[in-house]
Amino acid sequence: MNTYGQLYKITTFGESHGTGIGGVIDGIPAGIKVDMEFIQSELNRRRPGQSTITTSRNEADKVEILSGVFEGMTTGCPIGFVVRNSDQHSQDYENMRCLYRPSHADFTYQQKYGLRDHRGGGRSSARITISRCVAGAFAKLVLNQLGIHIYAFTSQVGNIALDCDYSKYDLTKTESNVVRCPDAEKAAQMEALIKEVKADGDTIGGTVTCIIKGCPVGLGEPEFGKLHQMLGSAMLSINAAKGFDYGKGFNGLAERGSQQNDLYKQGGRLGATITNNSGGIQGGISNGEDIYFRVAFKPVATQLREQPTIDLEGNPTTLKAKGRHDPCVLPRAVPIVEAMAAITILDCYMLYNSRNNFPDMI
Amino acid sequence: MNTYGQLYKITTFGESHGTGIGGVIDGIPAGIKVDMEFIQSELNRRRPGQSTITTSRNEADKVEILSGVFEGMTTGCPIGFVVRNSDQHSQDYENMRCLYRPSHADFTYQQKYGLRDHRGGGRSSARITISRCVAGAFAKLVLNQLGIHIYAFTSQVGNIALDCDYSKYDLTKTESNVVRCPDAEKAAQMEALIKEVKADGDTIGGTVTCIIKGCPVGLGEPEFGKLHQMLGSAMLSINAAKGFDYGKGFNGLAERGSQQNDLYKQGGRLGATITNNSGGIQGGISNGEDIYFRVAFKPVATQLREQPTIDLEGNPTTLKAKGRHDPCVLPRAVPIVEAMAAITILDCYMLYNSRNNFPDMI
Amino acid sequence: MNTYGQLYKITTFGESHGTGIGGVIDGIPAGIKVDMEFIQSELNRRRPGQSTITTSRNEADKVEILSGVFEGMTTGCPIGFVVRNSDQHSQDYENMRCLYRPSHADFTYQQKYGLRDHRGGGRSSARITISRCVAGAFAKLVLNQLGIHIYAFTSQVGNIALDCDYSKYDLTKTESNVVRCPDAEKAAQMEALIKEVKADGDTIGGTVTCIIKGCPVGLGEPEFGKLHQMLGSAMLSINAAKGFDYGKGFNGLAERGSQQNDLYKQGGRLGATITNNSGGIQGGISNGEDIYFRVAFKPVATQLREQPTIDLEGNPTTLKAKGRHDPCVLPRAVPIVEAMAAITILDCYMLYNSRNNFPDMI
Amino acid sequence: MNTYGQLYKITTFGESHGTGIGGVIDGIPAGIKVDMEFIQSELNRRRPGQSTITTSRNEADKVEILSGVFEGMTTGCPIGFVVRNSDQHSQDYENMRCLYRPSHADFTYQQKYGLRDHRGGGRSSARITISRCVAGAFAKLVLNQLGIHIYAFTSQVGNIALDCDYSKYDLTKTESNVVRCPDAEKAAQMEALIKEVKADGDTIGGTVTCIIKGCPVGLGEPEFGKLHQMLGSAMLSINAAKGFDYGKGFNGLAERGSQQNDLYKQGGRLGATITNNSGGIQGGISNGEDIYFRVAFKPVATQLREQPTIDLEGNPTTLKAKGRHDPCVLPRAVPIVEAMAAITILDCYMLYNSRNNFPDMI
Repeated sequence: MNTYGQLYKITTFGESHGTGIGGVIDGIPAGIKVDMEFIQSELNRRRPGQSTITTSRNEADKVEILSGVFEGMTTGCPIGFVVRNSDQHSQDYENMRCLYRPSHADFTYQQKYGLRDHRGGGRSSARITISRCVAGAFAKLVLNQLGIHIYAFTSQVGNIALDCDYSKYDLTKTESNVVRCPDAEKAAQMEALIKEVKADGDTIGGTVTCIIKGCPVGLGEPEFGKLHQMLGSAMLSINAAKGFDYGKGFNGLAERGSQQNDLYKQGGRLGATITNNSGGIQGGISNGEDIYFRVAFKPVATQLREQPTIDLEGNPTTLKAKGRHDPCVLPRAVPIVEAMAAITILDCYMLYNSRNNFPDMI
Repeated sequence: MNTYGQLYKITTFGESHGTGIGGVIDGIPAGIKVDMEFIQSELNRRRPGQSTITTSRNEADKVEILSGVFEGMTTGCPIGFVVRNSDQHSQDYENMRCLYRPSHADFTYQQKYGLRDHRGGGRSSARITISRCVAGAFAKLVLNQLGIHIYAFTSQVGNIALDCDYSKYDLTKTESNVVRCPDAEKAAQMEALIKEVKADGDTIGGTVTCIIKGCPVGLGEPEFGKLHQMLGSAMLSINAAKGFDYGKGFNGLAERGSQQNDLYKQGGRLGATITNNSGGIQGGISNGEDIYFRVAFKPVATQLREQPTIDLEGNPTTLKAKGRHDPCVLPRAVPIVEAMAAITILDCYMLYNSRNNFPDMI
Repeated sequence: MNTYGQLYKITTFGESHGTGIGGVIDGIPAGIKVDMEFIQSELNRRRPGQSTITTSRNEADKVEILSGVFEGMTTGCPIGFVVRNSDQHSQDYENMRCLYRPSHADFTYQQKYGLRDHRGGGRSSARITISRCVAGAFAKLVLNQLGIHIYAFTSQVGNIALDCDYSKYDLTKTESNVVRCPDAEKAAQMEALIKEVKADGDTIGGTVTCIIKGCPVGLGEPEFGKLHQMLGSAMLSINAAKGFDYGKGFNGLAERGSQQNDLYKQGGRLGATITNNSGGIQGGISNGEDIYFRVAFKPVATQLREQPTIDLEGNPTTLKAKGRHDPCVLPRAVPIVEAMAAITILDCYMLYNSRNNFPDMI
Repeated sequence: MNTYGQLYKITTFGESHGTGIGGVIDGIPAGIKVDMEFIQSELNRRRPGQSTITTSRNEADKVEILSGVFEGMTTGCPIGFVVRNSDQHSQDYENMRCLYRPSHADFTYQQKYGLRDHRGGGRSSARITISRCVAGAFAKLVLNQLGIHIYAFTSQVGNIALDCDYSKYDLTKTESNVVRCPDAEKAAQMEALIKEVKADGDTIGGTVTCIIKGCPVGLGEPEFGKLHQMLGSAMLSINAAKGFDYGKGFNGLAERGSQQNDLYKQGGRLGATITNNSGGIQGGISNGEDIYFRVAFKPVATQLREQPTIDLEGNPTTLKAKGRHDPCVLPRAVPIVEAMAAITILDCYMLYNSRNNFPDMI
């Protein structure tokens, strides 16, 4: 329920305004050099207060490693970690104790559990994605050694969208603007749209696209562990995610099989394809081409303008958020998508590895 | 890897041209009356040879229950079952032993495992979804007692699409045409498109939409067991699935938060909402409204016209399928989507139940 | 619940008098040559009617492989299998429909599930261990390639016990007598005791000892996947098992640490020890020495002489078994202990393998 | 690997001399009043420095709850917690960096992981059982509400043993002496033996017996989730555990079936038995009688007198422990056995609950 993964596993805990956010990373191979600067930098990519288009909540989000690292190396033992909450402003949420915010998890938590921590959304806050970024950063350290690299970016905000053909873009440019979009021109349009929406006290959604390069052939299991199923499950677990597709996905519905089939190249790597409409996955198994997928995010439910809603007994009331909120989750969702992709790919890699190299083991 | 679910679990086996397809259903509550006629009828909805727009492979797909049922009732013990393969025509696939079909799993299986059963796609064949339909039928027997009902239908073929607002349609009409689309007019257009595509030796994709009515509030777990994550994972495990979204999903990207938020109704069931853009799920937990989602399916990769491809060593060759194939998976995907939804909802229900009614147990 | 293992997994189904007993083996590496003669021979070791000291139920117990094997090799896909029941004599059990046998699972099944298959113990029958023997036989095929070998034998019947120091015995002699005991003299005594007990209509218990040779250093996971924990869990899942210990276990309670510590050899394999009181496991991880453990089995509950008992409403009645029963489970428990050990060791090996050879994979 | 349980789950982290020991409790029902005084008192029962027969390491072992509790109640969200290490004396272990202690996990960790935290045994230290005590204390809070109570005690030290018939003893007397044995006379003998052994710089083992009262009929799953299997797995995961049996177990091997069968009482609770040789479990399912089992613990490997051993390259060297160590684990193992029993029973209860009360849910 709060654990993800089979062999590389992350178990998380924490609420927006509790003592801290943290987790346990289990299954990481021993002997990985732990680059704490890199790990903190990955956390910094999702931290609030980065720019004028993200929430002004301002926390250092400094991660403390509690176990599993000895003299700078992973030991193979579980890595406990915690990020203490600090700049909480819980009093901003006092009025939410007694009402249900529209399109938030207030009502469902209250009904499911019979009580809830109303402060800042409690466990349903996007703040809990901190744990995923830490686990993803550790996974990236391993994947780097395997030559696997992950690139996510904002590909759509409202109806401003990049072209589906990501090969047009220089993926190293993603961090060069606050929207995290590799196309400078579109990034500027997206930023303007977010600012406009924010000025209205409103919010907007969009998509993140993610590219995984360097995966060997063979990751993913047929039937109930298909690689795209694992990636989809990972992405749909992210707060505010509403959809997932890979390869041509929903964009290819009008095409015929003769258009979408990826024909094999003559020469070069065996099995390399001319096109990659399949998104690097055939029959649930990586085929050696780039893996790519999209994640749809809804507009943030919190509104800085007045909305009608109900109190705990169902009586009408109104609500105008006082907390600090993102007008658009996309820029901060990018590192979370990468983190979940890294965790998933490493997990699938270890599962694949479990059945390989048998004769070499003795 | 071949098991799905946590408390209501299905483990499957079988290949297209092996001895049989089957599985084990584990965790079903005891004392459920087993309506074998209903179970066989669910299998018949996915069987080949139903109409001129599906494959002409013609098998009875008769299920044999091997255990777990005693005097017409479930005993709480695992239900083993098998459907024997019969009309296989394995010789139609002999030429596939030595080549890789484009956009099929031939290459990835061969690389992952070092060998493969080339006959009819082996384990990657859609024929293995038989097991899911059996497990789904048993799940429906339980869900019916709980007042939970599932309705899937073909909502798009190529670019012929139904309206997103499913309340327009009479969902009891789905089985009245071969496309399994509740709108007779659109169904006719879809059927015509499929026939046209088939005549070309080509194929076409589309979407299935699924509605779940009667779910209590509280199914789904925060963080890594979100209800839409579980549903998405289930759907993405189906052969040829390329995408999943729920509620407004990809269709709502241009909307603002003020448009998408579901405001609460005054009066009636506590927590009922005026609109349902959220698709019946808030914070990963069912909110008592209808749950609805879409699944995108790619055009079938098998072409009845000649395609260039490669042999096992990478040399160029050509391929023209001789087997019997569907020009469009959508009509037969409908019962599979329902089956996977039923399995998932029952599983989530049992997880929810595990933490409820505590004081009543003693 | 009916699945065992994490990476090499077995899911089982079946009841004593149902249609058949079977299961699904998941996770077996591809490319293993399937020696059907060996697999059937392993099943024959547990089949009834082998000798005058086992039940006279007489079934061929012929296994049918339904999937996962192609042209004599494992494909990496799940292996479905079934053994049909034949010589059931269900009428012998008709009187058990309405009463609870002492120290059997009749009462607990009825209370847990609200109904039960009373014929031959239903799911609680030892007949369901057939599935374990099949999965164990496949595991042994893989372990043989890795140089890992498993030797179980009857080490105690009633109070006739072998010496704890198994190095005295020639483990290849186990199959040379009906008791499956490598010491011919003790075997004769055990056989005589079982016959005496049988003549009384009574039953007797004992222990099986199991030795695993050739395990590499490093199997088992600290904390909740300790190797002896995994083995203990496997053994305690066998019908009629009442206890498990490894190394000196319960026999070493009177010894001091200075007596039980295993000192290192000077020279030879690094880490080799002079004694092996630890049973080949330190801190939950295999240390390269022989792994050995014992399993205690209770006397069979079924009595061929009259016992007082109760009917479904609690009224007094009497019972004298009519079915065919073993006076002692030990001889037939030996292959089941080996099977569960093989499944567990292969599973732990694959888990170990999942984190190894990382740099070699690319 | 570092997670235990299916529905009530504990994931742990930490090493003896790292920053801290902690974990995440997942699956606890919401609305449980959190009695922090009780939880700390359970930790205090296992803390070092309690008496002259335990290690003199002196740490407060104060637990900090990081999440999952709001206004004194569980919220249903995961409970993160940490106990900071303080009185570590790491320099006492500096010499262990370069050698392997006999019958410790030093060699197996080094070989498995390629490196190890040598300080105080690292992850293999008994100190990591702190996490189990915290999770067990939370489980007890829930079980108390269900009327289920757990009583463990030291039943054997060396060859000083209590009678198997625990009904002779007043289980509320267990905490009245430092050995945690409910028989004052035997306790005095055990204490004297431990002091004698300690004076020699040596160590001694023994058994803990555990009684569970108040379990409803029906906990435990047939086949691979038998209640005694789950309990055995839990107990064998505890540091230094060498064996497990339940009911008559290894002590009943000489008895015949006619002696061991538990006959039903006439009158009273349906299914109540006159004797309880089965240990409260039939066919893997609780039968409403007391559940009882034993756990064997080896003598502590650490010796305060000189032992020969090897260094990392296998060269001979000697070792005399300088750290603070228990001469006998039994007194401090008692609360750990109770904790693991509580976690297991609650987990099995929730699994049982998942399939019950179906009609009531709607």
